[in-house]
Amino acid sequence: MKFNSLTEGHIKALQSMVDADRFSTGESVLDLHARDQSSHPRSRPEAVIWPLSAAEVSNILKYANAHRIPITGWGSGSSLEGNPIPVKNGIVLDFSQMNRILEIREEDFQADVEPGVVYQDLNEKLKHTGLFFPPDPGARATIGGMIANNASGTRTVYYGSTKDYVLRLTAVMASGEIVKIGTRSSKTSSGYDLIHLLIGSEGTLGIVVQATLRLTGLPPEFSAAVVTFPNVEAAGRSVFEIKRAGLNPAALELLGPEAVALMNREENLDLSVSPTLFIEFHGITTGQLAEALEMAEEICRAQGCLEFRPGLGRAERDRIFKARHGLGETIIRNHPGCRVLSTDVAVPNTQYPELIKTIHHEVEAHKIIGYTLSHAGDGNVHLVVAGKKGDSKDWEKIDRVVNTVVTRALDLGGTATGEHGVGIGKRHYMAAEHGSSLQWMQRLKSMFDPNGILNPGKIFPDGLDG
Amino acid sequence: MKFNSLTEGHIKALQSMVDADRFSTGESVLDLHARDQSSHPRSRPEAVIWPLSAAEVSNILKYANAHRIPITGWGSGSSLEGNPIPVKNGIVLDFSQMNRILEIREEDFQADVEPGVVYQDLNEKLKHTGLFFPPDPGARATIGGMIANNASGTRTVYYGSTKDYVLRLTAVMASGEIVKIGTRSSKTSSGYDLIHLLIGSEGTLGIVVQATLRLTGLPPEFSAAVVTFPNVEAAGRSVFEIKRAGLNPAALELLGPEAVALMNREENLDLSVSPTLFIEFHGITTGQLAEALEMAEEICRAQGCLEFRPGLGRAERDRIFKARHGLGETIIRNHPGCRVLSTDVAVPNTQYPELIKTIHHEVEAHKIIGYTLSHAGDGNVHLVVAGKKGDSKDWEKIDRVVNTVVTRALDLGGTATGEHGVGIGKRHYMAAEHGSSLQWMQRLKSMFDPNGILNPGKIFPDGLDG
Repeated sequence: MKFNSLTEGHIKALQSMVDADRFSTGESVLDLHARDQSSHPRSRPEAVIWPLSAAEVSNILKYANAHRIPITGWGSGSSLEGNPIPVKNGIVLDFSQMNRILEIREEDFQADVEPGVVYQDLNEKLKHTGLFFPPDPGARATIGGMIANNASGTRTVYYGSTKDYVLRLTAVMASGEIVKIGTRSSKTSSGYDLIHLLIGSEGTLGIVVQATLRLTGLPPEFSAAVVTFPNVEAAGRSVFEIKRAGLNPAALELLGPEAVALMNREENLDLSVSPTLFIEFHGITTGQLAEALEMAEEICRAQGCLEFRPGLGRAERDRIFKARHGLGETIIRNHPGCRVLSTDVAVPNTQYPELIKTIHHEVEAHKIIGYTLSHAGDGNVHLVVAGKKGDSKDWEKIDRVVNTVVTRALDLGGTATGEHGVGIGKRHYMAAEHGSSLQWMQRLKSMFDPNGILNPGKIFPDGLDG
Repeated sequence: MKFNSLTEGHIKALQSMVDADRFSTGESVLDLHARDQSSHPRSRPEAVIWPLSAAEVSNILKYANAHRIPITGWGSGSSLEGNPIPVKNGIVLDFSQMNRILEIREEDFQADVEPGVVYQDLNEKLKHTGLFFPPDPGARATIGGMIANNASGTRTVYYGSTKDYVLRLTAVMASGEIVKIGTRSSKTSSGYDLIHLLIGSEGTLGIVVQATLRLTGLPPEFSAAVVTFPNVEAAGRSVFEIKRAGLNPAALELLGPEAVALMNREENLDLSVSPTLFIEFHGITTGQLAEALEMAEEICRAQGCLEFRPGLGRAERDRIFKARHGLGETIIRNHPGCRVLSTDVAVPNTQYPELIKTIHHEVEAHKIIGYTLSHAGDGNVHLVVAGKKGDSKDWEKIDRVVNTVVTRALDLGGTATGEHGVGIGKRHYMAAEHGSSLQWMQRLKSMFDPNGILNPGKIFPDGLDG
């Protein structure tokens, strides 16, 4: 695909489509939209527009499509795989001002929102209703970004990911056409599932400008435990048994010893430095949760856990989960002068210990700084590595390790990305993971976006994105 | 689309692709594949083939595509909207012999199956593992048919529908190309969601020849209650409060008084003839479930229920759910000389009482025989009507009522089909329900099946199916 750079003429035309203060070509604005939270190279857009309505987005896309100008959607820039970096420049549509909660239909368990709504803000607003929107990527992600990346997090093992919570979308297609998709009914078997086709497509098939979200009842009670294991195998086996027993934990997070040591230091926790499982249950009565915890303890002890610390109070649990959610930034802070890369793979349950073994072996053999954080209930592992900025030898090693880990995950029947999306960093694994079905994805891309203007340079390996 | 009838030459070529006893043009065989369990008009295929492998299906499709011969997949013929009726004749692919459970990976919560596996048989086979495949349409449906229709049922409110339990598919595309889609990882954010695009596409985009299913832990305990209400509003309000309280029932089935009376007669039950809610909870301990039931009782009493009968034993609960699942056939048996039609709509929670009011009003005003059975937790209502065979005046009335009910469901923000699929009967509501997104579905159809050979005459209104 060949794209055009913005000319004075383009800029004038685009400026006329929005209020003056919602169009910018200022250096600092362009810089702020040149990278997400990943360590992928910066790439600046040529202009940033803050749209406020579907009609504005439609006008901009119609123009961009006619003039072959790249369009990349932007939520809060919290993604971890370069997903919204405008690698082909062009226009970034920043949705941070299109952030109204349009309607909460409490008794339908639904909310209509604009794409710029931050999910924590939605949940804050929902508090008094006893309902919430469960996907929890951690950072202050926007609903639009979460839909684009099919975001998930620590609670996905119980509640599912973003794709399980979207009933309707309004999307603007590459041509500028505004399309409404889906139904307010919580269940439908009518026609092809266009909703799921758009979710996780990283803004390459259409731009979401409104969503009807499914909400669920906020659990009144929780219980949590911290469990220490002598090795990852025993922890992995416990994860399986807890799931098989139908205990339905709301979180099953497994951290490597090096991550535990860091959390201890940062948050003044006194966790044993060993593979550590955080278990959380959500439910309606404390009695029910105490029973679940008892059964989980029985399982973990049978698998030889070193310590099972149940009955965390809300404060202690919040402290641990805050430390868990903050680990990414903690790692960055603890390695000044380093660039930090978080890779994300997922494998079938049984292959989880094997994957962890590969990771540990690679990290040790290449003497790199590496932390493993896992949504173990989903077989989803993040390897977070830190390498000296500008040290090409260090980064060559890291690249080799990451490549070995991702390739190993694929060999084990897994996926190159469990939740961060393909973005830039996982493009070259697409052929290995998807085989001939990648061509069907490519055909879909060509059908939805024949000029390839929507977030070009993402998802597809070079030469395949239209 | 213009299709060719089978010539002697076609028949010889197709016969050579499978063993002799797996190809038939026998009258009784064609008759058996001329209708499903709906009351849509019969339409016979010209030949039936029982494939055994992806390669056979591929060869047949390649040939059919080159010679413009319609191909319709067939599971057990238990669908309710004419979904597998070969309205354009051609070939029916009957998957009943391609029914092996290929592998159960217990510790991955996964099973690989061929499309002809009946879901109850899979669950029987899984019993000793403590796992099961939750979607439960009731009839002896095959996995292939369930995937084609995104089947669901009484437990969907808790467990979700078929689309939530498919990780990988092998599909044969119209050209004969065999494509593998998806991953064995329970979680992925890699690429476009082709899995969900195929699920619910009713065999119009590709033919599924293998699936990797996600399994879940079989709940060791259950509790159930029967609740009688003075009116549907009180029942609907209770459904909402039970969901909001996070009680997570595994079934929330609401039956109209006329359906209750029939169940009483048929199964010697002594239920009050009034709007009746069946509640079921699944869980790990009896204590937990007793608590949930207590809270449900509190809610239903606050909404003015007439009777709350908790603590059903397994035998009684099985008897009630058997009667519930068998209602369709019971209605047919109780109206000899009648044709029975089951329509299926779903609306947002809050619109459920309004929809029921419309249904009652229409049934009474037109003096037709009608029963309402609802998966109330999902806002999904089936209106089952019986009309004299060949009585065109009776059926004109019925068609009018059905049309009013479906149109009302759409006006209330709902869908023309919650779980039966579009098939034949809901095609003419597609434009009203989907607006301009129907054109995107049509484009997808043209891309996946340019010659329109896959299950022609379904989903799309006349003139739009390619």
